[in-house]
Amino acid sequence: MTTAAEQQKNILIVGGGFAGISCAKALANCPINIILVDQRNYHLFQPLLYQVATAVLSPADIASPIRHILRNQQNVKVGLGKMTDIDLDKKIAHFAGNRVPYDYLVLAIGAQDSYFGHDQWSQLAPGLKTVDDALEIRRRVLLAYEEAEWEADDESRRAKLTFVVVGGGPTGVEMAGALKEIAAETIPKDFRHIDTTTARVILIEGSDRLLGAMPSQLGKKAQQGLEGMGVEVRLNSFVTDLSEGTVAIGDEELPAENIIWAAGVRGSQIAEKLGVELDRAGRVVVTPDLSIPGHPEVFVIGDLAHVIDPRTNQIVAGVAPAAMQMGKFVAGLIRRESTMGTVEKARPAFHYHDKGSMATVGRNKAVASIKGRSFSGLPAWLLWCLVHLIPLVDFRSRLSVMFSWTWSYLSYSKNARLITGDAKLKVKSIRKE
Amino acid sequence: MTTAAEQQKNILIVGGGFAGISCAKALANCPINIILVDQRNYHLFQPLLYQVATAVLSPADIASPIRHILRNQQNVKVGLGKMTDIDLDKKIAHFAGNRVPYDYLVLAIGAQDSYFGHDQWSQLAPGLKTVDDALEIRRRVLLAYEEAEWEADDESRRAKLTFVVVGGGPTGVEMAGALKEIAAETIPKDFRHIDTTTARVILIEGSDRLLGAMPSQLGKKAQQGLEGMGVEVRLNSFVTDLSEGTVAIGDEELPAENIIWAAGVRGSQIAEKLGVELDRAGRVVVTPDLSIPGHPEVFVIGDLAHVIDPRTNQIVAGVAPAAMQMGKFVAGLIRRESTMGTVEKARPAFHYHDKGSMATVGRNKAVASIKGRSFSGLPAWLLWCLVHLIPLVDFRSRLSVMFSWTWSYLSYSKNARLITGDAKLKVKSIRKE
Repeated sequence: MTTAAEQQKNILIVGGGFAGISCAKALANCPINIILVDQRNYHLFQPLLYQVATAVLSPADIASPIRHILRNQQNVKVGLGKMTDIDLDKKIAHFAGNRVPYDYLVLAIGAQDSYFGHDQWSQLAPGLKTVDDALEIRRRVLLAYEEAEWEADDESRRAKLTFVVVGGGPTGVEMAGALKEIAAETIPKDFRHIDTTTARVILIEGSDRLLGAMPSQLGKKAQQGLEGMGVEVRLNSFVTDLSEGTVAIGDEELPAENIIWAAGVRGSQIAEKLGVELDRAGRVVVTPDLSIPGHPEVFVIGDLAHVIDPRTNQIVAGVAPAAMQMGKFVAGLIRRESTMGTVEKARPAFHYHDKGSMATVGRNKAVASIKGRSFSGLPAWLLWCLVHLIPLVDFRSRLSVMFSWTWSYLSYSKNARLITGDAKLKVKSIRKE
Repeated sequence: MTTAAEQQKNILIVGGGFAGISCAKALANCPINIILVDQRNYHLFQPLLYQVATAVLSPADIASPIRHILRNQQNVKVGLGKMTDIDLDKKIAHFAGNRVPYDYLVLAIGAQDSYFGHDQWSQLAPGLKTVDDALEIRRRVLLAYEEAEWEADDESRRAKLTFVVVGGGPTGVEMAGALKEIAAETIPKDFRHIDTTTARVILIEGSDRLLGAMPSQLGKKAQQGLEGMGVEVRLNSFVTDLSEGTVAIGDEELPAENIIWAAGVRGSQIAEKLGVELDRAGRVVVTPDLSIPGHPEVFVIGDLAHVIDPRTNQIVAGVAPAAMQMGKFVAGLIRRESTMGTVEKARPAFHYHDKGSMATVGRNKAVASIKGRSFSGLPAWLLWCLVHLIPLVDFRSRLSVMFSWTWSYLSYSKNARLITGDAKLKVKSIRKE
């Protein structure tokens, strides 16, 4: 005799980002067993992570425990841990020492920073993927000013007050703007020996424009906005070498102690274990229904998926709305097939409904492209605020972020300026008192 | 020729806690040069730190950069770093590689956790002194439930769901209450395999009552309150040994994976370099004017000071109001003497104006002793909330904490449940799926 529970399909979702969570949620009230595992206990609203790194928000404002998000959905169990291996033939995934058999596997493990073959740079130039990354960047940025205040050696002090952001996509643009705001608005009165407004913020982009995924006039607007704030934007520039205290941009050696990496992502390494085609960025090339070739029961969604939208013939971008739509799409397939009890003969293809994209540059300044229309300046900035507030995971976060933003806006202050972790000054020559 | 600045006295304040900050602030507009150094870049509202450890508040709610607090006080410079040595005869302090000469030295470096000679216990049983401590305790507490959810071994699971708080003072009482609230109210719906309401919270106190500094009926009230919530209170009990996964209480070996240390403090080790008498807890025995014997220019204030109040003949307690009063008292002396240009012949003695003390136990439950009158229950709890909101460093923090409290109160939720740092499960035998 088999019980109803035994007949139910087992769905293993790996990853609690936008893709994984929206897939799990779209399967609510479906008579299946879902296990959702993630390496971290929280779902993160990644588009605002740079504001944790730049001391505007606290981690809890933009992150929420995955268990908490799914607490009322009885068909989901949540696990904390890393998937270490997959046996596609036996349909078993290995997670934190456990072997989890599945009927459907949904891989939504996202991407990681790509250092283009220079993995040793990751220590010198942290990227921005997790809360821990953001707190590390915050620590480094704040510590740089503390060190500069007491550094008697002019050259070393200039290097401490030089911030280089690598990569001119939305994250890079937003980081560069926020770093300049800290220097120019937030902390000038806090220091006695240094003029923080002289801090250099340099944004490096390999192509000939910022915000490559948006219309070119918006890239120009963003550049003008940043340059108006005093950010140095260098297009057609590449980091050729990194060492402690120096970044090489092309042939130029620039003394700079603070490098932030926002230059690109590649698929998580576990993708290699699938034994299927990966693109140059390490993403999994999936079929139009987001499954992998030969395994209709294995889906790859979110930033890890390389999928061509059949209507536009373009690769679907690694952005939150696309990830959420993929999650819902796959949930729809699974829901139908688990009712039918078989794999659909002709599964539909995934289409991305691109509602637009946007990036903020600074106070009252943003750029947005919505359904082919371009906006910039204050209207885009207000829209950006709204669009980033509404989807915040719970009502409390929304209020809390709104409060922090309003406060920062009115007071020109950033209140989460706490150095946690190692707070030891490294100074070449200390200022005599 | 000497300039005005050269004639001005140099005041070195070490420590940015309640004592150091209130001393610096009370010297505003005084024609002197103040340097305030601290190992951390923030001033911390320590009475609410347990709420960071128990995921109610974010660090930025109760901590603020010292520079920011003192940004408008032009006679202060702030330094980040540790004082490593003092030369009392030459009046020079060593700070982060710098030699800082002083006319007055104010030591306000506080206390550290005391493991009563078992320093190796500090790894197993973290205390609660800094933001990093609180985040580490939060990480351990949340991870314990994650591990218990997947732990198939009954005994190991019970150990993971056993929380032992050592020390029945205000911090221990508040931690124990908050840990039980998490287990009983906040997370039961988040887990599928375990019943979190069965988690044991055990509070160990060496003496025959809780809250030894308060009237005895309040200790009883607090105990009743905790026991009503399901906390096991063990009086006249001592931790005799600690090892990974086990705590020995007297002769009993209790399997418990989560130990939190709130059992006592001792003076910071730098106090030994002063070469003056220390009490058994390592605090500096100061003269009635809070200076050290033979050095009227060196003051010790806050938790590091052992001072007898001449009116009550009792040692002044290591609490925030006493620290602030000491800071203001010493600032008054320095202000007068720097105007006079000489040390006062007959300095006044420090008196502590004890307005009362209080501790919260749980929802609607607290105990308070105000000017000899004892309160408990809801009135004491409301008073506790008020008394802990008002002195929060800035207006923004006050609003933010009020918001978090209101939210937690209404929703029975604690929103900062993020595991940062190492989030790897350690499970003896994993539950099969």
